[in-house]
Amino acid sequence: MIASRIASMPPSPERAFASDNAAGGHPAVIDAIVAANEGHALAYGSDRWTDDALGRFRDLFGPSSEAFLVWNGTGANVMALATMLHPADCVVCTDWAHIAVDEAGAPERALGAKLLTLPSPAAKLVPEQLEGLAHLQGVQHHAQPGVVSITQSTELGTLYTADEVAALCETAHRMGMLVHLDGARIANATAALGGTVQALRSFTVDAGVDVVSFGGTKAGLIGGEAVVYLNPALAQRAKYVRKMVNQLPSKMRFVAAQFSALLDDDLWIRGAQQANEMAARLYEATRVIPGVQYDHAPQVNSLFPTLPPEAIAPLCDWCFFWDWDVSRHQVRWMTAWDTTQDDVDRFVAGVRHLLS
Amino acid sequence: MIASRIASMPPSPERAFASDNAAGGHPAVIDAIVAANEGHALAYGSDRWTDDALGRFRDLFGPSSEAFLVWNGTGANVMALATMLHPADCVVCTDWAHIAVDEAGAPERALGAKLLTLPSPAAKLVPEQLEGLAHLQGVQHHAQPGVVSITQSTELGTLYTADEVAALCETAHRMGMLVHLDGARIANATAALGGTVQALRSFTVDAGVDVVSFGGTKAGLIGGEAVVYLNPALAQRAKYVRKMVNQLPSKMRFVAAQFSALLDDDLWIRGAQQANEMAARLYEATRVIPGVQYDHAPQVNSLFPTLPPEAIAPLCDWCFFWDWDVSRHQVRWMTAWDTTQDDVDRFVAGVRHLLS
Amino acid sequence: MIASRIASMPPSPERAFASDNAAGGHPAVIDAIVAANEGHALAYGSDRWTDDALGRFRDLFGPSSEAFLVWNGTGANVMALATMLHPADCVVCTDWAHIAVDEAGAPERALGAKLLTLPSPAAKLVPEQLEGLAHLQGVQHHAQPGVVSITQSTELGTLYTADEVAALCETAHRMGMLVHLDGARIANATAALGGTVQALRSFTVDAGVDVVSFGGTKAGLIGGEAVVYLNPALAQRAKYVRKMVNQLPSKMRFVAAQFSALLDDDLWIRGAQQANEMAARLYEATRVIPGVQYDHAPQVNSLFPTLPPEAIAPLCDWCFFWDWDVSRHQVRWMTAWDTTQDDVDRFVAGVRHLLS
Amino acid sequence: MIASRIASMPPSPERAFASDNAAGGHPAVIDAIVAANEGHALAYGSDRWTDDALGRFRDLFGPSSEAFLVWNGTGANVMALATMLHPADCVVCTDWAHIAVDEAGAPERALGAKLLTLPSPAAKLVPEQLEGLAHLQGVQHHAQPGVVSITQSTELGTLYTADEVAALCETAHRMGMLVHLDGARIANATAALGGTVQALRSFTVDAGVDVVSFGGTKAGLIGGEAVVYLNPALAQRAKYVRKMVNQLPSKMRFVAAQFSALLDDDLWIRGAQQANEMAARLYEATRVIPGVQYDHAPQVNSLFPTLPPEAIAPLCDWCFFWDWDVSRHQVRWMTAWDTTQDDVDRFVAGVRHLLS
Repeated sequence: MIASRIASMPPSPERAFASDNAAGGHPAVIDAIVAANEGHALAYGSDRWTDDALGRFRDLFGPSSEAFLVWNGTGANVMALATMLHPADCVVCTDWAHIAVDEAGAPERALGAKLLTLPSPAAKLVPEQLEGLAHLQGVQHHAQPGVVSITQSTELGTLYTADEVAALCETAHRMGMLVHLDGARIANATAALGGTVQALRSFTVDAGVDVVSFGGTKAGLIGGEAVVYLNPALAQRAKYVRKMVNQLPSKMRFVAAQFSALLDDDLWIRGAQQANEMAARLYEATRVIPGVQYDHAPQVNSLFPTLPPEAIAPLCDWCFFWDWDVSRHQVRWMTAWDTTQDDVDRFVAGVRHLLS
Repeated sequence: MIASRIASMPPSPERAFASDNAAGGHPAVIDAIVAANEGHALAYGSDRWTDDALGRFRDLFGPSSEAFLVWNGTGANVMALATMLHPADCVVCTDWAHIAVDEAGAPERALGAKLLTLPSPAAKLVPEQLEGLAHLQGVQHHAQPGVVSITQSTELGTLYTADEVAALCETAHRMGMLVHLDGARIANATAALGGTVQALRSFTVDAGVDVVSFGGTKAGLIGGEAVVYLNPALAQRAKYVRKMVNQLPSKMRFVAAQFSALLDDDLWIRGAQQANEMAARLYEATRVIPGVQYDHAPQVNSLFPTLPPEAIAPLCDWCFFWDWDVSRHQVRWMTAWDTTQDDVDRFVAGVRHLLS
Repeated sequence: MIASRIASMPPSPERAFASDNAAGGHPAVIDAIVAANEGHALAYGSDRWTDDALGRFRDLFGPSSEAFLVWNGTGANVMALATMLHPADCVVCTDWAHIAVDEAGAPERALGAKLLTLPSPAAKLVPEQLEGLAHLQGVQHHAQPGVVSITQSTELGTLYTADEVAALCETAHRMGMLVHLDGARIANATAALGGTVQALRSFTVDAGVDVVSFGGTKAGLIGGEAVVYLNPALAQRAKYVRKMVNQLPSKMRFVAAQFSALLDDDLWIRGAQQANEMAARLYEATRVIPGVQYDHAPQVNSLFPTLPPEAIAPLCDWCFFWDWDVSRHQVRWMTAWDTTQDDVDRFVAGVRHLLS
Repeated sequence: MIASRIASMPPSPERAFASDNAAGGHPAVIDAIVAANEGHALAYGSDRWTDDALGRFRDLFGPSSEAFLVWNGTGANVMALATMLHPADCVVCTDWAHIAVDEAGAPERALGAKLLTLPSPAAKLVPEQLEGLAHLQGVQHHAQPGVVSITQSTELGTLYTADEVAALCETAHRMGMLVHLDGARIANATAALGGTVQALRSFTVDAGVDVVSFGGTKAGLIGGEAVVYLNPALAQRAKYVRKMVNQLPSKMRFVAAQFSALLDDDLWIRGAQQANEMAARLYEATRVIPGVQYDHAPQVNSLFPTLPPEAIAPLCDWCFFWDWDVSRHQVRWMTAWDTTQDDVDRFVAGVRHLLS
């Protein structure tokens, strides 16, 4: 049945649903790169574009915060953690954490430290899990829980509420730990939790987070992230550590200019809102198609449907996406800042055509 | 006397002589970024721009070579070395080596290995220095010399001839060591040694070098380097190691497109020729100015003159450059791919005005 | 009721049941130290005591095996793994593994590598778990499973049969992984699996294990372990790595002499048989006491009973042992090479007195 | 001539002059091991022998100092430094430093940090060398000088006076650096500088040293060193770091008992005095022998004579010692705590016989 329908699939979307990092740069970001290519400027951040971008981060997170521009997400996470750990500390995170699963051992290599992964069906930690680590504290045989790293929005597309983050921070700090927030998709989280700078602050600086990896690439840069110290005492060694973990861009103006464009007039939030809305639209339109099953509605920009097994390959050939859990016939559909209603509608039409 | 002349300095150059990484991106590179911003493309290198760039590297270094695109020079060096070392190996380099002096301990951190620095007035190693390490080999108390890392052109603006590199490689290989070439300025070296792809090959693949860090940023990219395995057996773990040292660009097409533009029609060599020629022009015009003294003529794009001490600050205020050796009143003047004759002539006029 | 019985506890055992590393050195080991203290001997292993000990390890594991003497168990494990991993590899082990739980992050620090822990109720891995890692292989985002580390006997006092080890080795090797065996209690395992050198070989060299951490300390040394390469190709860098991980004893004759004494005439096996038998005796005598509950009989020298909560503290005050799982009121009783029937009988008498 | 005299060499000494770690354990140390082998004692330092040894270290260095017992010298140094460094710090030491030359890269591996070696003909640093590092401070491209590590007595058998150490500490602290003292031969230094506990304090705690690696092995233990925190704030993470660098002895009572014996009644100083005196005796008796040349008199227990080249091999065959600088025909003769006048006199007789 499906085989017969493959030949007659409708036109595929202009943009697929593979990942938010399959999208390019926002036009304003590209324009900013072009504009920044103007004569000479001192390298390594001593330039006016960097000054501007860092000022915008202070506008976001407050005047005592301090931001450092870096290349990529793994680098941002490694840099942040390297400035937060004491010798023999470990990093506490979920067993879904990008730092634990998808960074090829970069944290262990750069930090020389253990990642202590805790089970987490929804890729979220709860304070009780931190409290359950108390028996490790003070015992010389165990790496000492020094930093809790949470991801917002998570690797499973779930969200911490501001209160949940605050509760984790409160517990972590009470136990002598610091809190890192991996915000590779912090824009999507911000969009979902109110879509304002105040929303961003509510689950970061106001909640007590110490250091944020602020994602730019998935939000519309061609490449660039930031490590933002909300706890400025932790920034003392940051500039050296950035270099030490290979994350100091030489012609930094080109990373900075991208960020200035993205942060201008909440462009980063609006792009994430678009991505989130398109995920919701895709969810609503496909959940009613026989054979498409969801565990829950999307909170941000990723969907994890299960599909009839025989439909996956042809659908993927028609419009690429990634497998998620082969054993369950579960896949991942992900929207980006540039996903359009037309992309969604065409994709839905194709799914409906194949499965009906 | 100098003070009185400061007020009447001629117009300063449009581009200063601070560094080749103060230059922006070549217009063709910028155009390539703009052009690559077209719809969605899979991340992490599964895109047609990356295919194109990697093909161009095979054209340069031969079909068995294998290139990997990365963010920056420190990252390229660290990635290269991480794939070349055995446990308890050390890296042999000069005491001027960028990896030893200017990378904030990134190699030691990522490699967990010693850098064994050898004295080198001209920032170059000779085979006899390698032979002098034979007493370390096989002795359990010493880190084992595993990789020789040379820089071409060097941190002091000197050059290895192809024969000199070949002799180092022969000695290193005979002693069981591999050879890494830090080519942050490989374009300038290529330009100086003939200005052809054959010249490039003569001091790399033909000379027996195992792995090259191929510099793009100083040659006209806004950001991007490559690790090129001339010894393909060493590339087996490269893709994992690249991720592990935070050097895997997510939207890789934007690094790749830059490289394709730069490598097209020898643009990278022509830019370096311009830089080298402008340095020669600056040398010839300033060596005859009283008070400007050189140890030797430039071989590539950097000059290290000594100046009358009282002239340095005003000259620097007028057109910025960096100190080199304060104790000797030595400074560094560096040209870039975009330095013009007018830049040089204006700078010379200013120097002559101040010192005459 | 218990409170009233505390005052009238019978005499406590001469040796408690805290741990096998609470025992001292076997008298023959102490004698060997005294005898080795004879004049001068070259340091770092160039001495006749070391020659003798290494010969004894070749007698155990075959002429192509190669042993290296080290200080302690964590060091042995770290040294073994450091010679087995490629860059960006990870170590696969159980979530009970000593290397993952009880070594304060030493492996991650020394290896710069991830430990990938797999759930294991009995602290044992099965081949299917290794096969379940196939999806990580070849994917640049994931640390690559390079070494499987199993513990024999395990941290929970369980045992792998020789066939089980062989099956793990077969799967690991087929998938391109090496196998490390943490034998901190290899003597207890050998005793339990037959009590002969052939038994030892059956689950190590004959099963395909590549490298063994051979425990001496818990078997009766005052301090000393060995790393034994059954796969001699892996030993090429071992002597340098031993020094690099701080495990090269200077006056090595004193470690070697201990091992020669312990390995002589199967003393190490006989001590472990005694420990195992005393654990079995303790199990049989206490399992029938009301309030003492076991999940299973001991396979080697540790018991994990649950006790009435109010009995734990007084019993522990009377004769020390460690908690295991406080939430279950589970404790650990462990015998050693020097535990006697009288020790067991007195302890049983105390338990019975308190709980009856 | 020499060849003819080889056949008629006088009897060789009972103890050679290879190294102070070729000596065994002091009889009192061996006795202490035997005595400590008494029943069970909790592992990892929770035992009365460890309490006693740590108390003796507080007696030496003051009540606020804190000592940690470890296995060996490399381990002690690595542990000390690992607790002293911030991320991206480097360790400043001489180019003769044991940590830089003779530890197979262990510090770089465990610390992930650079060792910045400074030239030092006498293996000693001077404050001006530290001041010369000021240009590195605050610059993001450079590893930051965080710890100065000096060796006392040095690898060349030279000594710092207490004033020299104090001046280094003052400069280091003023520049924001900490000071580590590698005291593998601290006993020899103490003996040479007065032979009292007050002498020890003069160049350690009174001089401002932050952390000491206190050598036991070369002073008469069979194996054992201590890391002593004179700056107790640095000890906060020490117990975890000790485990993390594989330096936590399980049956610690046997290391502790050795130290208690050695520290009792200044036995450690008296042994070192004997070693130093025997070196002086050897120097005085051989300096007048034609062909034996010294750059200077010994300050502690090592001599570095140059010899007629043809004499070295036969002399070495007769009574073993190590080459030092083959190019100069320089060798090393080293005395130990157990070297006797008879050993020296026989050795001198042999040298005189061969060279006369």
